Amino acid sequence: MKINVNPVKGMRDFLPAEVRLREYVKSKITETYEQQGFSLIETPAVENIELLTNSEGGDNLQLIFKILKRGEQLQLGRADLSEESIVDCGLRYDLTLPLSRFYACNKDKLPTPFKAMQIGTVYRAERPQKGRYRAFTQCDIDIIGDASPLAECELIHATAKALQSVHLQDFVVKISDRRLLAAVIASFGFAPEAVPSICLALDKSDKIGWDKVLQELCEGGLEAEQVEQFVSAVRGLSLETVLSYGVPASIYDSLKEVIDTVAKLADGKYQVIFSPTLVRGMGYYTGMVFEIATEGLGLAVAGGGRYDAMIGKWLGTMVPAVGFSIGFERIILLLQERGFVPPSSCARIALLFSQEHDSLYSILAAAEALREAGHKVSTLPARHKLGKQLAQLEAEGYSGYYSCVKGELILFP
Amino acid sequence: MKINVNPVKGMRDFLPAEVRLREYVKSKITETYEQQGFSLIETPAVENIELLTNSEGGDNLQLIFKILKRGEQLQLGRADLSEESIVDCGLRYDLTLPLSRFYACNKDKLPTPFKAMQIGTVYRAERPQKGRYRAFTQCDIDIIGDASPLAECELIHATAKALQSVHLQDFVVKISDRRLLAAVIASFGFAPEAVPSICLALDKSDKIGWDKVLQELCEGGLEAEQVEQFVSAVRGLSLETVLSYGVPASIYDSLKEVIDTVAKLADGKYQVIFSPTLVRGMGYYTGMVFEIATEGLGLAVAGGGRYDAMIGKWLGTMVPAVGFSIGFERIILLLQERGFVPPSSCARIALLFSQEHDSLYSILAAAEALREAGHKVSTLPARHKLGKQLAQLEAEGYSGYYSCVKGELILFP
Repeated sequence: MKINVNPVKGMRDFLPAEVRLREYVKSKITETYEQQGFSLIETPAVENIELLTNSEGGDNLQLIFKILKRGEQLQLGRADLSEESIVDCGLRYDLTLPLSRFYACNKDKLPTPFKAMQIGTVYRAERPQKGRYRAFTQCDIDIIGDASPLAECELIHATAKALQSVHLQDFVVKISDRRLLAAVIASFGFAPEAVPSICLALDKSDKIGWDKVLQELCEGGLEAEQVEQFVSAVRGLSLETVLSYGVPASIYDSLKEVIDTVAKLADGKYQVIFSPTLVRGMGYYTGMVFEIATEGLGLAVAGGGRYDAMIGKWLGTMVPAVGFSIGFERIILLLQERGFVPPSSCARIALLFSQEHDSLYSILAAAEALREAGHKVSTLPARHKLGKQLAQLEAEGYSGYYSCVKGELILFP
Repeated sequence: MKINVNPVKGMRDFLPAEVRLREYVKSKITETYEQQGFSLIETPAVENIELLTNSEGGDNLQLIFKILKRGEQLQLGRADLSEESIVDCGLRYDLTLPLSRFYACNKDKLPTPFKAMQIGTVYRAERPQKGRYRAFTQCDIDIIGDASPLAECELIHATAKALQSVHLQDFVVKISDRRLLAAVIASFGFAPEAVPSICLALDKSDKIGWDKVLQELCEGGLEAEQVEQFVSAVRGLSLETVLSYGVPASIYDSLKEVIDTVAKLADGKYQVIFSPTLVRGMGYYTGMVFEIATEGLGLAVAGGGRYDAMIGKWLGTMVPAVGFSIGFERIILLLQERGFVPPSSCARIALLFSQEHDSLYSILAAAEALREAGHKVSTLPARHKLGKQLAQLEAEGYSGYYSCVKGELILFP
């Protein structure tokens, strides 16, 4: 029987060299987050379907991999068959929803505030295209139970540290508050129903330019003169001027405190700016939002915000929460483009043997002696074309070669 | 809306203390395997459904979590609806099948022999019960492309080293060859069709005792006298006597070489024994099989064997392969029962602050100073009942406490 041996469409096999890079980045990020006081937790990649489909995941709800019921629970004979009646769980599309469920389920065993770190695979059935996968790694930190802007400062500072630990520099931290842009829009007399589409258009100004934003807003049925005044105001908006557009002082105060604090902690090593058009897509954000962009990539390498309403929905009491997620795959891509090779803690040695000369025991004992000297050692049969073999081994990352003859180790020049 | 916030039935949330233990065990095992020359690879947790259902996974094929097709591919309106017509992929039930597919797919980019290590979650829709989960971690090493018994020796030696690295001692390595027991059975004149059920009964002798094995074989329709002679012979079987029961010399030679070599490498630190009744359940094993059992657990903590036919089925050429899998969850259970706490690389410090006294910046700058001195630091609001707070923090694993007053760090006694 002919079987397709490729990975599932949109998913990937990782070969040793790529795994080494991914594990290096994972360990650097998680080490940094541990130093910053975050604790790793883990939840299943599979969640109950009601949890997934009743979440505020926006477009992601259309992309859920759903899992079929099993045994007697699965009844395919019925006439009125719907998707809902034949699935009972599905794969998670992000790490925020599972974290919220985890907190609601385990809160009595967790400290307040709870500082969680997660790193794991999430699944979205998107149309596969270059650089977009159906299974990819996310790396999140969240602070649950702290309503003060200290939580925002800690998340942004820790994430910047994590990016620095994987050799990213020259990045810009952009900060705003969802409610700020809404207040400015309202002050120009636009109807509340128009707020989401206006936010969406402004969010694209970096990519499509302000002329196109203007055009899009007018085509959306808003009055041209009003739109022009509004866009010109937004473009000139600084943190100092927002109060004159009806933004509540409490929102301004918190935002200013966070931007000033993070900028001081940055100590000139990265930029921290107020970015009034920043919206972030996820529907569950309720307050401050932030992202980190690098010069080279154009795209954000990390994004997050405050979501004070999500956990409370299940517990019946408000639970403040704020999170920041690193786009792990983008960082890997960036490091690969730079030709970055992770440093190795010790040398990889190949021990080339011939079974004609040595018993299995003497080969393995020789390898063990090299390991006890602190090396990573792989035993490999010596080939006839030794030069070619050594060249191949070097390409695989080996940096030392021994041969074993009658139990004696001989170092290659 | 009332939502169930528990994890999916049979799956688990892991809180920080348990994650620390699991990550410690993972890192010890993978470090050991790296030293032994194995390279980490990664495959998706999702595989195409044809691959999963056409595999030799035995009972596991009944336990696959199947994933529904999406969009236009999913047609629920048809009258003759079958499971096969509405699913296109599923979750892996082990790591051996994905490895075999990975090798068949990527062989041109991989060295020969290829020494792979994997650690990942596998999924089986078993009836949940104590100690048995629907999502659990496996940790496998495999050598692909080496038909010689050196491969068996390396796998067994590396796995024993990995178990030692997570503080397991007093274990027994049991080794046999599937073909050996089959030859002995044949020499007693039993029909070839009876071989699987006889093997199955013998495999249980450790658990149910020899009297019950005898009874089961007789009830299975075999002649009582013949069964008694056979069982008495098997119970007395030593490696030295197998040749007199028609076992081919080549099988005996390899088995003896592996047992002698591994025993010499063990250097008295663990036992290595010939165990003729060892069968191992998986249908794909073709030669030597082995497992490691500990005194305390009764159950095997690791199991494996040679499966020379699996990869070749897809490639059209034979590819020798042998693997050894550690039961990661059993090791975690064993360490938890012993009250084992993983050592920490550096102290976890709590920095207790009051926002009345300090600005966000001075709190965070004080924390950063402690981090630069090599600590893991979490900032936490000081509570009124300080004694109770410190006791809670100690229980969470903190070992040092500072407070921050007007930017000055004060060490608690």
